[in-house]
Amino acid sequence: MSVRDLTILGCSSQQPTRHRNHGAYLLRWNGEGLLFDPGEGTQRQFIFANIAPTVVTRMFVSHFHGDHCLGLGSMLMRLNLDKVTHPIHCYFPSSGRRYFERLQYGTIYHEATRVIKHPVHEAGLYSDDEKFKIETTYLKHGVDCLGWRITEPNQRKFCKEKLAAHKIRGPMVHELEQKGELIVEGERVTLDDVSWVRKGDSFVYISDTRFCQDAIDLAKNAKVLLCESTYLESHQELAIKHQHMTARQAATLAKEAHAEKLILTHFSARYLDSRLFEEEARQIFPNTYAAEDLKVFSILK
Amino acid sequence: MSVRDLTILGCSSQQPTRHRNHGAYLLRWNGEGLLFDPGEGTQRQFIFANIAPTVVTRMFVSHFHGDHCLGLGSMLMRLNLDKVTHPIHCYFPSSGRRYFERLQYGTIYHEATRVIKHPVHEAGLYSDDEKFKIETTYLKHGVDCLGWRITEPNQRKFCKEKLAAHKIRGPMVHELEQKGELIVEGERVTLDDVSWVRKGDSFVYISDTRFCQDAIDLAKNAKVLLCESTYLESHQELAIKHQHMTARQAATLAKEAHAEKLILTHFSARYLDSRLFEEEARQIFPNTYAAEDLKVFSILK
Repeated sequence: MSVRDLTILGCSSQQPTRHRNHGAYLLRWNGEGLLFDPGEGTQRQFIFANIAPTVVTRMFVSHFHGDHCLGLGSMLMRLNLDKVTHPIHCYFPSSGRRYFERLQYGTIYHEATRVIKHPVHEAGLYSDDEKFKIETTYLKHGVDCLGWRITEPNQRKFCKEKLAAHKIRGPMVHELEQKGELIVEGERVTLDDVSWVRKGDSFVYISDTRFCQDAIDLAKNAKVLLCESTYLESHQELAIKHQHMTARQAATLAKEAHAEKLILTHFSARYLDSRLFEEEARQIFPNTYAAEDLKVFSILK
Repeated sequence: MSVRDLTILGCSSQQPTRHRNHGAYLLRWNGEGLLFDPGEGTQRQFIFANIAPTVVTRMFVSHFHGDHCLGLGSMLMRLNLDKVTHPIHCYFPSSGRRYFERLQYGTIYHEATRVIKHPVHEAGLYSDDEKFKIETTYLKHGVDCLGWRITEPNQRKFCKEKLAAHKIRGPMVHELEQKGELIVEGERVTLDDVSWVRKGDSFVYISDTRFCQDAIDLAKNAKVLLCESTYLESHQELAIKHQHMTARQAATLAKEAHAEKLILTHFSARYLDSRLFEEEARQIFPNTYAAEDLKVFSILK
């Protein structure tokens, strides 16, 4: 799978509306499917998005308020029903383990799928495998709530012209990559002479939280920042009361973090028109887009 | 609320499809809202049905396979969020209590609603209050699975003409009802002289099961029988394997029980056209209708 995109399966906060399902975000990247915060009804949203649920390889839960996890159990049951052969890795704040297990075992079924739990105990680097580096931070939402930063590995890119100039071709490229240098026709050629390192892109997901420095730090130079903005500035007092952000705050966060693109989500049901969020945020951070159910954002390299 | 109807909030079995949500059935009757087997996404189906979830006063779970209960937790959380002041009565097979509680407490929230659990331990009459008589039977589905029969109380109906003939009017009617007889102008008038008893109607819900005598007995003379028919006769072998019924079997059940109206539901995702179920069943039981998401069946007295 060379797809590299983010599908919005839902973008409502607290309760679904006619046009917005409970939140859920599918990131297809490096041959995997990373599902963030599956709310109720995520399973069916896959149908409307024309994507098979079986693409999911990892699930991430920021916290255990219902709108961020009510679809977790049914997704696991669905993957089980679909007889996926790959394991499903699940990442969540460790204090929520009992909720995770209640959701996982809320119904009668024969579990055949391998579910690998990753309860996260502390902020920082959680894991780094050949596919992704996973980092987290604790957000400020009144309950244990994690922001996620997913980074692909750096990649060495060869420059065709320079390879040709040094007469390196075919299996010699691989040999150079392995050894770090080669002698070609008496001349020593190092990796750096003919290639460069492309820094891996980062995708950052921040929900739910009030504005905080830890969120900015997590989002540093993100290629794509998917961020909650439950309210508009006109309801600032509600954002404070419920420990959420406004569109303006999310934009400020993106700006201070030097993110490349901001996608707003987790909208309160009181707002029918999501463009209001875009408009408010773009005054601070122009490259902002509002999520919308079933919208797909390509993530270009 | 004088409404008396059955709203199909979903009618799929096992997994939702593009056109069918997981099953869920709302019976509005005698000022109450009885919700049967809320599958995943029931909360949002209420929006599409233009009905406030707060009408729900009782929930019934036949068994704890996911498609019959995955929406239970979120419905309870939603009613809590909506600050309903009435208690929510929940009826389910007692062996499923641990599943009920996992669904109920699968997420973090402050529970304010009064949830009254009714784990059912045996078949027969479960309760009889001024609103409804609730009877159950164990179905045949491989796990503890209950069929439900809900009956409204019998009602005494007065005949205007006979009341007038006996010169009974105003508060005298109430007095007659209380005492059973009255002396009017020297003449003894009994209740039966001027009134008759209207037998309360029964609504019966049967899902999931293979064809069995207990289901027929439960459905005896039902005004409305809502019954699973997961398969058509052409997939009879699957019905047997998975302990479900075909449309033809559901129709036979309705016929043998002398039900008045049959509504078929719980369709396998393999069938796109629900009319095939109607057609198959009507050969045996003409007054049959196939459920369809958001369809409303009026239940006339």
